[in-house]
Amino acid sequence: MIRFNNDYSQGAHPAVLQALADTNHESYAGYGLDPQCERAAGLIKEHLNCPAAAIHFVVGGTQANYIAVAACLRPYQSVICADSGHIHAHETGAVEHGGHKILTLPAENGKLAASQIAAVAEDYRSSPIPEHITQPKLVYISFPTEYGTVYTRAELAAIRTVCDKYGLYLFVDGARMGYGLAASDATLADMARFADIFTIGGTKCGTLFGEAVVIPNGALQPHFRSFIKQNGAMLAKGWLLGVQFAALFETGLYFDICRRAVELAMDIRAAFAAKGVPAFIDSPTNQQFVVLTHAQADKLAEKYIYEPEQTVDQDRICVRFCTSWYTDPADVAALVEDIKNL
Amino acid sequence: MIRFNNDYSQGAHPAVLQALADTNHESYAGYGLDPQCERAAGLIKEHLNCPAAAIHFVVGGTQANYIAVAACLRPYQSVICADSGHIHAHETGAVEHGGHKILTLPAENGKLAASQIAAVAEDYRSSPIPEHITQPKLVYISFPTEYGTVYTRAELAAIRTVCDKYGLYLFVDGARMGYGLAASDATLADMARFADIFTIGGTKCGTLFGEAVVIPNGALQPHFRSFIKQNGAMLAKGWLLGVQFAALFETGLYFDICRRAVELAMDIRAAFAAKGVPAFIDSPTNQQFVVLTHAQADKLAEKYIYEPEQTVDQDRICVRFCTSWYTDPADVAALVEDIKNL
Amino acid sequence: MIRFNNDYSQGAHPAVLQALADTNHESYAGYGLDPQCERAAGLIKEHLNCPAAAIHFVVGGTQANYIAVAACLRPYQSVICADSGHIHAHETGAVEHGGHKILTLPAENGKLAASQIAAVAEDYRSSPIPEHITQPKLVYISFPTEYGTVYTRAELAAIRTVCDKYGLYLFVDGARMGYGLAASDATLADMARFADIFTIGGTKCGTLFGEAVVIPNGALQPHFRSFIKQNGAMLAKGWLLGVQFAALFETGLYFDICRRAVELAMDIRAAFAAKGVPAFIDSPTNQQFVVLTHAQADKLAEKYIYEPEQTVDQDRICVRFCTSWYTDPADVAALVEDIKNL
Amino acid sequence: MIRFNNDYSQGAHPAVLQALADTNHESYAGYGLDPQCERAAGLIKEHLNCPAAAIHFVVGGTQANYIAVAACLRPYQSVICADSGHIHAHETGAVEHGGHKILTLPAENGKLAASQIAAVAEDYRSSPIPEHITQPKLVYISFPTEYGTVYTRAELAAIRTVCDKYGLYLFVDGARMGYGLAASDATLADMARFADIFTIGGTKCGTLFGEAVVIPNGALQPHFRSFIKQNGAMLAKGWLLGVQFAALFETGLYFDICRRAVELAMDIRAAFAAKGVPAFIDSPTNQQFVVLTHAQADKLAEKYIYEPEQTVDQDRICVRFCTSWYTDPADVAALVEDIKNL
Repeated sequence: MIRFNNDYSQGAHPAVLQALADTNHESYAGYGLDPQCERAAGLIKEHLNCPAAAIHFVVGGTQANYIAVAACLRPYQSVICADSGHIHAHETGAVEHGGHKILTLPAENGKLAASQIAAVAEDYRSSPIPEHITQPKLVYISFPTEYGTVYTRAELAAIRTVCDKYGLYLFVDGARMGYGLAASDATLADMARFADIFTIGGTKCGTLFGEAVVIPNGALQPHFRSFIKQNGAMLAKGWLLGVQFAALFETGLYFDICRRAVELAMDIRAAFAAKGVPAFIDSPTNQQFVVLTHAQADKLAEKYIYEPEQTVDQDRICVRFCTSWYTDPADVAALVEDIKNL
Repeated sequence: MIRFNNDYSQGAHPAVLQALADTNHESYAGYGLDPQCERAAGLIKEHLNCPAAAIHFVVGGTQANYIAVAACLRPYQSVICADSGHIHAHETGAVEHGGHKILTLPAENGKLAASQIAAVAEDYRSSPIPEHITQPKLVYISFPTEYGTVYTRAELAAIRTVCDKYGLYLFVDGARMGYGLAASDATLADMARFADIFTIGGTKCGTLFGEAVVIPNGALQPHFRSFIKQNGAMLAKGWLLGVQFAALFETGLYFDICRRAVELAMDIRAAFAAKGVPAFIDSPTNQQFVVLTHAQADKLAEKYIYEPEQTVDQDRICVRFCTSWYTDPADVAALVEDIKNL
Repeated sequence: MIRFNNDYSQGAHPAVLQALADTNHESYAGYGLDPQCERAAGLIKEHLNCPAAAIHFVVGGTQANYIAVAACLRPYQSVICADSGHIHAHETGAVEHGGHKILTLPAENGKLAASQIAAVAEDYRSSPIPEHITQPKLVYISFPTEYGTVYTRAELAAIRTVCDKYGLYLFVDGARMGYGLAASDATLADMARFADIFTIGGTKCGTLFGEAVVIPNGALQPHFRSFIKQNGAMLAKGWLLGVQFAALFETGLYFDICRRAVELAMDIRAAFAAKGVPAFIDSPTNQQFVVLTHAQADKLAEKYIYEPEQTVDQDRICVRFCTSWYTDPADVAALVEDIKNL
Repeated sequence: MIRFNNDYSQGAHPAVLQALADTNHESYAGYGLDPQCERAAGLIKEHLNCPAAAIHFVVGGTQANYIAVAACLRPYQSVICADSGHIHAHETGAVEHGGHKILTLPAENGKLAASQIAAVAEDYRSSPIPEHITQPKLVYISFPTEYGTVYTRAELAAIRTVCDKYGLYLFVDGARMGYGLAASDATLADMARFADIFTIGGTKCGTLFGEAVVIPNGALQPHFRSFIKQNGAMLAKGWLLGVQFAALFETGLYFDICRRAVELAMDIRAAFAAKGVPAFIDSPTNQQFVVLTHAQADKLAEKYIYEPEQTVDQDRICVRFCTSWYTDPADVAALVEDIKNL
């Protein structure tokens, strides 16, 4: 069986694993205070145009997300999020467990519009009884979104403008950042410009595990390590994160492997389109959501593992095909051929 | 410089790293639902004499600790802990952040006595106003303790008896379990018999990272994965944990490397004793706490990195020398010689 | 100006105030462990047909709500609630602050349907990844609802059936219970039969303050006083709550004054209907929501204070007229006349 | 039986109850936004010499305490407290339930010394691993203390100096403020000068219920009403609090009735001293803690209700005799006589 179900079903890019092996017998200070993390942070900063940004490394995405929320908010404040957003739909209420309400908005193509955010902020600002509701203070978006779509630089700028107007923070969840950058006019420097805090995902983009948390906004930097430790996200052997991110960023490998995965996804997209199989949502990144008949789904399931997403109607189902840095072009070619023959 | 400051300053035992390399291009289902975790759990169970135990793998010790606490307690319940206990002293208030009070007791040799626990439980039971105080419901001990000491099987049995009498859960933090087992008459099967939930640490005992959470008590098993996910402790590529623990337990490597580290620590202990350097606390495991004069401390600091613990008096300081699975016997020999020449 | 804006803008029913004055120089034990609370609980129980119910008194509604939620749920569990529900819309995220996610459903006439609840429960039951989402465990409804509507006994029975099927608890927020009972075929005994926990509001129904929390389900009774104390809801002079509720329930005053308020509200409803002013929602209880033109709203605002609710369209606004136990029939007669002359 | 067990076993001072009766049929806006609360705040401010202070009214002391803590702290920060402090010993872990660790210090005479606070703050400031421990940020003291002792103005000034040096907030729990002021050279203006936030208790000093929260520090004022509402401490009929506090402060009644209660307590203190009954702690306020033999305790228990505190040794017990604004001088005279005859 060939796996296209997600982008985290294999270990690390060989270069990353090699870097871990190369440093396995080195001794380091613990908890992320080591030269490898420092080096990795430096390499990432080269892309940010933001020398004052703080960079931390944590193990996983859910951690990164709820810690970022915790660092941004006081208890009476809430986070604005698309109804399809990961923190709302797939993290077992971690944000609420941390004490914060999520204000959901209906997403279009998985994305929030600046005007939607403005409306929520304005509702609070003009409320005659603000103490009876939570104060929306943080906007959470993902890049790319849960549906693989991406915000353009102009869309990010528009959201930033609303955030500035209403005093909101912007958090960009970049669990799949590399795939998003490959399909957008936005860059990491744009993220650093528009977001107060954002992540650069490793788990789905070449590392065994690990997410870089980048904090351009100086007001959110103090005591961030305390949040990390308190929430169990501080890896004892923190250098393992630095080693992996350094391996990805010292040669641009991060960008290369993600771009390649997106190109392979485009082949799959084109094959479905040519066959007349409708996209559930039109995604320019490594996740492709298509609407299959049950017959089509069964046929493809003979050779491929994809991820069932939701029932569309009695006859059809939405499924996800996902490429990754480890996807074999030959597997994609086989899939493209099998789509043609559906 | 030779590091004796802690037991988590190098990567993984070569056999563990090799196992990761060997499986790097295998594809697995995510989130710990994979054959490697299942296999590792099975290998650990062979030591437990408790077929109904549930076993989960999480990344780090702080996570494991506060999740275990969360799974055991309702909001009005608290945890009994030595004043030197890790959850009280070194985890940034993670347990309180999760909403639970820690009731501290003065530890002797880092350990709690059954009678101390009984007294706290009895105070609550006989309180005329129990709703004004928290209900002690969970006993937290570590094995070995923060000071390297270990509970004997009889001591564990006595604590269990108190727990049974008062309806308390017992949680054993085994971040250094392997080193403790090498110095105690207690076994993993004893842990499964006496504890409701306990951990078997990997981070300090041969893995890159990872702790096994073992839950003998069936009442605490349901929905434990929800606690893991909600608290950001569910590794996307969960099999990485299974692979590492399987590597340690399939051949008994876990026990062998820890025993060897303890033997090396005994050499250091003997050297200090022979020299007349007093132990701060007499530890039979891989952590040795000794009281050095500043002159002695400075001398040893020329070649070795140790961990300063606390000021003893104006002239003396307590420091920790720590061996690990990666400690080089030659380094120990050198240290022993240097102690002799102090 | 005549106040119709809400039902908590005056002190206590004279009989309640008199009872407080009569007992002002009596001495009592504190924290609700006194004969007055016991007596009030006994009087309420006469209506429940549920001798095993536990009854507690707390000061306010928000307290009662989030404490009830806390007592019902483990950290990974969530509460199902109408999108217009009070705990979701008007309590500053108190439930989330306590760590629990609210799963909102679109309400029809302010009410949840049993089928909606079943769908959410079924989604969880059939989820392939339940640990990534919260477990819906508690259903929150209010009686009457935020829009003054009431569940029939049959509707409550249908919800109970779904709760039984899926192992859910049912919590009925009865902040305005008295007004709801006056307009429904359901009784307090029905509440005790269908709900696991519910409240009987005093604040809006004759007392200075205070809500009775009734817990028919024995599984939710233990340690409830600990929840009350921990959340700051245990009144030092607890007998003040008992005295007030006893005054209302010893002669049936609670039911009488609420019925009378509903009758006055029906006069207002009839007057608006006769004038052709549309109801925003058709309410059989003490809250009347009508859609006024701005001209009508301005005219009535000359003599009356009502509560603006929301903009309906460019020309019209939804407002609330509210009667209470203290509403003067003469004021209602005046309002009816003024409506006629709009 | 004559009650000396506590200072909250009767209703309200007659003038307070009369004020409630006088306003019972007035209509007010809800949630504390009414002229009565405004008036009461103004009357209190006349004593503060701090025109910029914010004043809020909440129902109870536990609420006031944990809300004040919540408003002062970020999640990684903790509160310094005497081991006898109310928030540590008698509030069911409410502060920890809110996510914050309490750092306890051994109290002398129920009081913290400035030097103890400085030591804790210095430990954090000089810690090489501050992110592994909580940041002490708030000092909690009570005035008078749990043992009835009071801080002098000089002691408060010394604590303030430490707070300023280390950037700590000072919170003074004034549940019995009136009794403390009657026995100290400190005034309400001193509280406003030295504390960042403090309370003036009503429950034990003349009202049915209610605590005034005074916030001199402007940095802690924003959104305090959100904290109140989120934690269920916002009374719907908020004017009831304003009416009561206005009744106490418009004529100085608050100070008069507390002073009188302290004078009566001094009679009891003198009687015990004359008899040679040792004080457990020497208290200048309305709570007297004495060490009785069991025979003495039994004898007094025939006529009086006192509060047993703790076993002193096999033969003796510490008990509390408490006066209040409602204590009858004749009862005190009888007690004094009975002490004489022990």
